[in-house]
Amino acid sequence: MKATVHVFLKPGVLDVQGKAVESALHGLGWDGVKDVRVGKTLTFDLAATDKAAAETEVKAMCEKLLANTVIESYRVEVA
Amino acid sequence: MKATVHVFLKPGVLDVQGKAVESALHGLGWDGVKDVRVGKTLTFDLAATDKAAAETEVKAMCEKLLANTVIESYRVEVA
Repeated sequence: MKATVHVFLKPGVLDVQGKAVESALHGLGWDGVKDVRVGKTLTFDLAATDKAAAETEVKAMCEKLLANTVIESYRVEVA
Repeated sequence: MKATVHVFLKPGVLDVQGKAVESALHGLGWDGVKDVRVGKTLTFDLAATDKAAAETEVKAMCEKLLANTVIESYRVEVA
């Protein structure tokens, strides 16, 4: 199965990378850009064949390694 | 308008971050994980109100700043 994990900083957590991208875009003339947030997306193959089991497994991976749940939230897609 | 940009390394380009995540997951006992690829996702607000124009604008941002088109590909969503 194919898994996709989106990891984003929680709302309210200062996104310094996003701020840097935002001012770079402003510097290039795109002044209408606001609220830039930068996240990570991980894709991978999974040996599991059951969708529900795979989702539980990927969520465990997020809690343990892929996301820092103190400041980041994640979303899991399994297909 | 809300724009979302997904930036991924092109297939064939060695993803060292993905490899590191993969071996970390193997080390934690998830041996069934394969082909981990790590990408960036950027979300932002855009002043433009026309969808087609916004999409063109965001693509220009990708070409100029957000993606390194030599090794990365990107996908734009505007809503």
